[in-house]
Amino acid sequence: MHIGMIGLGRMGGNMAKRLRAGGHTVVGYDMSPDSGRDVTSLAELVAALPAPRVLWTMVPAGGPTDAVITELKGLLDAGDIVIDGGNTHYPDDRRHADDLAERGIDFLDCGVSGGVWGAERGYALMLGGDRAVFDRVRPLLDTLKPEGDYGLTLAGPVGGGHFAKMVHNGIEYGMMQAFGEGFATMMRSDLIDDPAATMVSWRSGSVVASWLLDLFENAVQTDPGLRGMPAVANESGEARWMVEAALELGVPTPATAAALWQRQTSRGGADDILRVVTAMRAQFGGHVTKVDEIATH
Amino acid sequence: MHIGMIGLGRMGGNMAKRLRAGGHTVVGYDMSPDSGRDVTSLAELVAALPAPRVLWTMVPAGGPTDAVITELKGLLDAGDIVIDGGNTHYPDDRRHADDLAERGIDFLDCGVSGGVWGAERGYALMLGGDRAVFDRVRPLLDTLKPEGDYGLTLAGPVGGGHFAKMVHNGIEYGMMQAFGEGFATMMRSDLIDDPAATMVSWRSGSVVASWLLDLFENAVQTDPGLRGMPAVANESGEARWMVEAALELGVPTPATAAALWQRQTSRGGADDILRVVTAMRAQFGGHVTKVDEIATH
Amino acid sequence: MHIGMIGLGRMGGNMAKRLRAGGHTVVGYDMSPDSGRDVTSLAELVAALPAPRVLWTMVPAGGPTDAVITELKGLLDAGDIVIDGGNTHYPDDRRHADDLAERGIDFLDCGVSGGVWGAERGYALMLGGDRAVFDRVRPLLDTLKPEGDYGLTLAGPVGGGHFAKMVHNGIEYGMMQAFGEGFATMMRSDLIDDPAATMVSWRSGSVVASWLLDLFENAVQTDPGLRGMPAVANESGEARWMVEAALELGVPTPATAAALWQRQTSRGGADDILRVVTAMRAQFGGHVTKVDEIATH
Amino acid sequence: MHIGMIGLGRMGGNMAKRLRAGGHTVVGYDMSPDSGRDVTSLAELVAALPAPRVLWTMVPAGGPTDAVITELKGLLDAGDIVIDGGNTHYPDDRRHADDLAERGIDFLDCGVSGGVWGAERGYALMLGGDRAVFDRVRPLLDTLKPEGDYGLTLAGPVGGGHFAKMVHNGIEYGMMQAFGEGFATMMRSDLIDDPAATMVSWRSGSVVASWLLDLFENAVQTDPGLRGMPAVANESGEARWMVEAALELGVPTPATAAALWQRQTSRGGADDILRVVTAMRAQFGGHVTKVDEIATH
Repeated sequence: MHIGMIGLGRMGGNMAKRLRAGGHTVVGYDMSPDSGRDVTSLAELVAALPAPRVLWTMVPAGGPTDAVITELKGLLDAGDIVIDGGNTHYPDDRRHADDLAERGIDFLDCGVSGGVWGAERGYALMLGGDRAVFDRVRPLLDTLKPEGDYGLTLAGPVGGGHFAKMVHNGIEYGMMQAFGEGFATMMRSDLIDDPAATMVSWRSGSVVASWLLDLFENAVQTDPGLRGMPAVANESGEARWMVEAALELGVPTPATAAALWQRQTSRGGADDILRVVTAMRAQFGGHVTKVDEIATH
Repeated sequence: MHIGMIGLGRMGGNMAKRLRAGGHTVVGYDMSPDSGRDVTSLAELVAALPAPRVLWTMVPAGGPTDAVITELKGLLDAGDIVIDGGNTHYPDDRRHADDLAERGIDFLDCGVSGGVWGAERGYALMLGGDRAVFDRVRPLLDTLKPEGDYGLTLAGPVGGGHFAKMVHNGIEYGMMQAFGEGFATMMRSDLIDDPAATMVSWRSGSVVASWLLDLFENAVQTDPGLRGMPAVANESGEARWMVEAALELGVPTPATAAALWQRQTSRGGADDILRVVTAMRAQFGGHVTKVDEIATH
Repeated sequence: MHIGMIGLGRMGGNMAKRLRAGGHTVVGYDMSPDSGRDVTSLAELVAALPAPRVLWTMVPAGGPTDAVITELKGLLDAGDIVIDGGNTHYPDDRRHADDLAERGIDFLDCGVSGGVWGAERGYALMLGGDRAVFDRVRPLLDTLKPEGDYGLTLAGPVGGGHFAKMVHNGIEYGMMQAFGEGFATMMRSDLIDDPAATMVSWRSGSVVASWLLDLFENAVQTDPGLRGMPAVANESGEARWMVEAALELGVPTPATAAALWQRQTSRGGADDILRVVTAMRAQFGGHVTKVDEIATH
Repeated sequence: MHIGMIGLGRMGGNMAKRLRAGGHTVVGYDMSPDSGRDVTSLAELVAALPAPRVLWTMVPAGGPTDAVITELKGLLDAGDIVIDGGNTHYPDDRRHADDLAERGIDFLDCGVSGGVWGAERGYALMLGGDRAVFDRVRPLLDTLKPEGDYGLTLAGPVGGGHFAKMVHNGIEYGMMQAFGEGFATMMRSDLIDDPAATMVSWRSGSVVASWLLDLFENAVQTDPGLRGMPAVANESGEARWMVEAALELGVPTPATAAALWQRQTSRGGADDILRVVTAMRAQFGGHVTKVDEIATH
């Protein structure tokens, strides 16, 4: 098939390569001249594709994705398809779909997992939209997905793809937190000589065998105690959105939220909580934590 | 009544004053010569009291309390009473009571709340042991407690006093965490001009009116944003013991534990968890958090 | 002052009484004919008040409040003031204020705490809006608030009143959870003879002394083990909104969320989580929890 | 090698089979006559093995394991080896090792993961004890472990094997909770047509690909909504021990604990917390949750 790929960064660029290796004709566009782009504007991109066109946006969620979809609305024709493969917040999908539908343009939202390994291993894809539209781009999806029976699903109507990806990332946060809690506990125990080797031994035969544990082995091969890693982590929105969605649906998500809060705390999010605690303790007990006590305690 | 007070620090010293002001005869002992002690050894202390003697230990939990009780066992007679008013872990009370009972010495464990305000306001006292022994020292307890109907209870058998105090402190942790979460949320919102003044306004008429909130006003009077407080806090054991006791009893304590973990995290307890998270993310997505990103994010 | 009170339920009705007792002239309106209303429509209410008018809405948040404000916009004149004292989600306040501003009508949002006790004890009031508008209705606020220095604050611009009330209720959730965790732990321990009496003893002299603990005594006076209370609780939105707001602000709120999730779980919110856990365990270990095991474990 | 297997239940029986299939000579003993045991007492078992003997206990932790080790101490000779493959709490290992060492008997503790799949797939084994003793039984361990580079580790000194297994199970709890939270969230969303199929699609290409997810597919093949699974789960001790160990080491484990508490809550552990919440709300607001409201909310 012919496809226009918008955004040729780490994800979009690799996906374009995998599509080409699978026999598809990809025309690539990116804002940056250094991106290896084939065309220099969205208008050129649209002109370079045979109708009905398929456009895949792989740009940052929010403003950038909004801007691309707005511009595409003015350039595309009825029957063309736009697929948003970015990390868009799922409520925005409905808005994008309705906007494009005014001109008869079809829309699919697509959550993409796999990271830098996807180029080789294939990407797990979860889509939202109409079955008929999904079927029309199926050859592209079949090339992007991993070999075998898994890695591709039409999760639901518009928004379902990004909702699924959001939930997927929430689970990912929870799993990483679980491994982290285990590793940290072993790091402080006299009974475990080598926490990293112990974790790695679980890659086979154990209940916690997983791709994340496979990756963990890569990480600890050169740095068994992970001393080179910063004890601070950003959060990229999706676990936060999942906790919020679950709150509204009445579903408790303490493990997902714990993972998220750990990251927010590492960026100073809990500092004012601790100041209140310290201030109250100082009032009733004189327990002001002195900075010079911290190192020695 | 006559009473021997062992440990004349911030708590023990103030309690001795309150007892004297209530008409009791207090003989004070402390290891430190600068403590204002009346006698220079436990043996002298015992000798200075009329039988049956009442001894109140107000020394750090663990080794120091163990040492005092062991020495008292050798010095006291049947019918004497030892009251442990420190923050002893409740399982140790049974051991202490059994040890003293070998020589016919009675034992009460007593949780004491009130901090530096207790001297004036009175102390909330919760005791464990036999009702008959409790009744014998009731005049002392009535002097130490606040005026009015509250602030004194025989919570249960030996261990019950410190179990109650442990639970009390767990609740205290949870309440301070709750106030802290509210304050921190308001500190980051554009909609609240003065988080401290807003909190203080709740001292009257609101559901969250409480002594902790009264103390909070003292803290923010000179430092409304609490910028002078360190964003780090120690934990003194009791909330940890409560979470552990509840785990064994099958009772979830997420709010208490959240407060405890926040403090442990502030001392670096979660650093290795974050290192695992960061290491895994770097493997699958190249998302290594760079130190120079931290300040600007 | 003259004031129109819209909504004469438990809260609005009591507030009207307290205002009248304070010398104000209150015209009351409610949809229900049985409410003791003075007028039968908003139009009549507006007509019965001298300009510039003050209208206080005390109706359910969301649709009912939206409807009242929309209707008032058509009835009021520039310089009139609308105060929303319901539990409105704070982002709606900005919308309401902007809507009314189109006709020159001023707006204040007001969080009200105090429950059924407010009638007698006074209500804690936190407001959002302009200082000048706040000052114009100050006599009404001074009557509604408790006597003394606390219980009234202008927390910030429009939205600040309900934001403050939302945070207040989040803290309230966390405090009740903390007391609950302590009580539940004591209920299962052999070392505490009477958990209710132990809790009540803390009303004086202890760090956890609070109005909630005062209320707790009322609850346990006739039912010390609280066996008559259902082990299920609804959530009314505000703690949920607080957790969501804090998530967006990057502030962790584990204690508040724990309280909320406990309630959601009591309504079946975690059932599907447990089904996944049970299904996975059954696959790897044959550990299907049988229903007849549940009672005996 | 020759080995005596004590306990021929689901785990011990399968391990005996795998050892025999690997060419070892296994003499099996179990208390139950229906177990397919080779001998009818521990004394017979010991007599049937050539010295130096290797005995593997695979019986319930606590009393049963204590009893077996005590009896073996009286039957074995210096240089014999006892391996405890049950789910013993790690502090008990030190006691068992010291006890056996009085007669020169060597001890290894061994955490075993793999469940019913281990018979075919091999067991993940983590051991605690001396390297020299570990090396002597290496041929048995190599048969029990999965093929390939993973699944066997000497984690540390005595206690290290069960400590590692405890941490492993804590991680397992956290991972299952994470999957459960995701599934439950999707179950309540209109945007996901088939939560089970969506989860299963992640088995390949995604970051959350894992053996637990493989097992999940088995579970949902006949029951996609898991309606046949009870929304209640027991806890078997190890996650609880991990949270307790981490608390003492100063490491927060909110995700692990969340999983554990969810299970305790499903058994009624939070009921008294909710009763306090409901009682307090009834006092200040008249919000008693009525049982007949529950179904309709």
